[in-house]
Amino acid sequence: MFAATTMLLPIPFSLYYGSGDHEALLLSAGITFACGLLAYKSTNLDHDLRPKEGFAVVTFGWLSLSIFGSLPFLLSGAIPGISDAFFETMSGFTTTGASILTDVESLPRGILFWRSLTHWIGGMGIIVLSLAILPFLGVGGMQLFKAEIPGPVVDKLTPRITETAKILWGVYVALSAVETLLLLAGGMDLFDAPCHTFGTMETGGFSTRNGSIAAFDSVYIEGVIILFMLIAGTNFSLHFHLFRGDFRAYARNHEFLFYLTTIGVASVLVCVLTYFSVYGTIPTAIRNTVFQIVSIITTTGYATADFGQWSFGAQFVIFTLMFVGGCAGSTGGGMKIMRVHLLVKFVFSEITRLVHPRAVVPVRIAGSAIPREVTTNVLGFFVLFMLVFAIGVFIMSELGMDMATSFGAVIACLGNVGPGLGDVGPASNFANVPELGKWVLALLMLMGRLELYTVIVLFSPHSWKK
Amino acid sequence: MFAATTMLLPIPFSLYYGSGDHEALLLSAGITFACGLLAYKSTNLDHDLRPKEGFAVVTFGWLSLSIFGSLPFLLSGAIPGISDAFFETMSGFTTTGASILTDVESLPRGILFWRSLTHWIGGMGIIVLSLAILPFLGVGGMQLFKAEIPGPVVDKLTPRITETAKILWGVYVALSAVETLLLLAGGMDLFDAPCHTFGTMETGGFSTRNGSIAAFDSVYIEGVIILFMLIAGTNFSLHFHLFRGDFRAYARNHEFLFYLTTIGVASVLVCVLTYFSVYGTIPTAIRNTVFQIVSIITTTGYATADFGQWSFGAQFVIFTLMFVGGCAGSTGGGMKIMRVHLLVKFVFSEITRLVHPRAVVPVRIAGSAIPREVTTNVLGFFVLFMLVFAIGVFIMSELGMDMATSFGAVIACLGNVGPGLGDVGPASNFANVPELGKWVLALLMLMGRLELYTVIVLFSPHSWKK
Repeated sequence: MFAATTMLLPIPFSLYYGSGDHEALLLSAGITFACGLLAYKSTNLDHDLRPKEGFAVVTFGWLSLSIFGSLPFLLSGAIPGISDAFFETMSGFTTTGASILTDVESLPRGILFWRSLTHWIGGMGIIVLSLAILPFLGVGGMQLFKAEIPGPVVDKLTPRITETAKILWGVYVALSAVETLLLLAGGMDLFDAPCHTFGTMETGGFSTRNGSIAAFDSVYIEGVIILFMLIAGTNFSLHFHLFRGDFRAYARNHEFLFYLTTIGVASVLVCVLTYFSVYGTIPTAIRNTVFQIVSIITTTGYATADFGQWSFGAQFVIFTLMFVGGCAGSTGGGMKIMRVHLLVKFVFSEITRLVHPRAVVPVRIAGSAIPREVTTNVLGFFVLFMLVFAIGVFIMSELGMDMATSFGAVIACLGNVGPGLGDVGPASNFANVPELGKWVLALLMLMGRLELYTVIVLFSPHSWKK
Repeated sequence: MFAATTMLLPIPFSLYYGSGDHEALLLSAGITFACGLLAYKSTNLDHDLRPKEGFAVVTFGWLSLSIFGSLPFLLSGAIPGISDAFFETMSGFTTTGASILTDVESLPRGILFWRSLTHWIGGMGIIVLSLAILPFLGVGGMQLFKAEIPGPVVDKLTPRITETAKILWGVYVALSAVETLLLLAGGMDLFDAPCHTFGTMETGGFSTRNGSIAAFDSVYIEGVIILFMLIAGTNFSLHFHLFRGDFRAYARNHEFLFYLTTIGVASVLVCVLTYFSVYGTIPTAIRNTVFQIVSIITTTGYATADFGQWSFGAQFVIFTLMFVGGCAGSTGGGMKIMRVHLLVKFVFSEITRLVHPRAVVPVRIAGSAIPREVTTNVLGFFVLFMLVFAIGVFIMSELGMDMATSFGAVIACLGNVGPGLGDVGPASNFANVPELGKWVLALLMLMGRLELYTVIVLFSPHSWKK
């Protein structure tokens, strides 16, 4: 029912531009609302959710959101095929930003707004929107929060989940408003500015232009978007502390520092590599690489340059960053910076342990020893991530994709990045992926967004025993 | 000094075929023996080795073996460049089988025999040869054994390391003799038969023919080699039990069963895929795929068909098997079956733990719970393996290799497989890899062969503190 309400938001744009898609949006909203009401009336919530039910609610919630969210595309005729419409909607709600549309500018304006809006609803979805609603329905939501951000450590901002969600939503709306204003100041109109804000703040990557951010050709706009991609890739609890006046929270957060360090090192490295291989002048190299590095590590996926033209080494850095992703508790995808940081630390501790076999060498981050269970959990996530990645690549390869394309397509979807490598790189898109491939990739987006376990647990026979 | 002695073995072939390379071999043996004697006289072994010294002995031992082992190639002029000769020798001693030679058949026969012999000395090297000699020198060798096969569990065959090594050597020589006889029976001559036995029993992959095993075009020879590749990829302690009359040891060994299952599943899968995409008839598909599957998972690298022609999905299966590798305690490379088995089990236990958050779910293999330290050790190895792989790929990419080639080259060397994908696939070789790339790949072979930690520990500052 909430999703139905949001479908009404694009209608003013539809009417203003006279793009004629308001009927499709109204009809979609009506159908969605009716189905939601029916489901609400027929659901009997007489007990607290058990963990496995929590996982099911999150997964099927997202799935139904994507099914109903594709109605405007289908009913307006903007995307005629069901596979395509579902792929595009799932890509929106999971804040992936991978697209099957080759000419977005030809879409009716209302639909185009809805497409960007799916990012906004999706990314902070469970944390902010659904967590503020589900508890209202009397559903005890702590395990959902655990399912959505099972990053190693969830900062308890406030003890109550509903309040936490509302506060995070406030932070989120405030930041979005600031970005929209800054983009307007840079010359974007009232349509492009909110759409690109949605794409940035959710690390989504849908643009209203075929050329993505490059279409605006403005250093100012690129700068604003870099800044807000960085913000969106940061743990939102840090922004919450900022709003409370504690701006030193950033400096104390080791994940945030590791995140900035990684971006810094990668930017310098890729600048050097592309300076010699492609760009030739330092300012061109910096302008063309830094945006891409930030866009990829935060898993936004906006583009100002085609990294498919870079040297293979520079492309491999991009590929690696797709695995890394943003901070835990951010809207970014990938494996999350905190997990990668912990993996690196763990390897070093193992090496030390071999030299001193009798010493007890705990994994330490910022001075404090990490509990063994957390390390094990992160290692398990890494193994599972690689396993799911490999299975995905096998399927895509067998559907006829070459190695670079299948590797790129799978990590772009599993990591919720957007553009991949090869035939699904930033200069191209997912339009030519075979039908079956689109469904597999859509599933990978869902799995990546819900941190793998949330979805996989549902396939476990243990989950369905009474 | 031992290596110098083995350099004399190819001389009879050199004289018989009149290939004129006996002088180079003699000279190499002389230089190597003199240097060995000098080192022996100047070394003062007055205490038991500490672990870090054990790691250093293994690593530098292998390194010097590869340096002196390249003398015959250089002095005979068969391989003029130092990088090439070192690459080829390291590839031999690490039983990788990656080659920079485009026309092996033009090599003098003595040198060609030496090239295959490096496999034989190398693969079982530490376990059998060096472990029987180093303890004789008064060096306590238990930690070396640990460094060579730090597979999760080292079966203690007999309590004393020297005896263990001698027994394993006996098993190894006996199996080699049987294979040589079987190959002779299949029509190979007295030169080709031992050379291909060396290549098989060590999961090496150097052939005396440009066309590898395909050159013989014999189902019988392919069958014999498949069988002995399987044997070489199995834990040698199982063969030891067989020689004692306990053939049920195989059936009790979960790693061996998982190994056969993996080969079976991969063979059926790839047969089906290549049947539809390339071969068209079932017998052709079986003959062309099973050999390759066994060759790759045991990390031998012999070829009877060019898997570069297969569908991308089938190629990806090959790529994945390169990571898996043979059993712990075999001559195979890769991550080892036992580790992969444990990783898979671990992921399942993590999923169960999420459904039942309060349950204690240990990782079980064959009914018995695996100690936490073993699981952690294996997870650490996996993370490190992927990390080293990624760094290797980055370097090779920046040297101008495309994605498939760099991925293939790095795993082919790190996993001690031999042929890779793309431009270093079975139909081609490593001749065109840039100079620097050859040194990097040679280092990766060494790291892979010594199970990563042995080499990496030497770079740790902890290792050099007093």
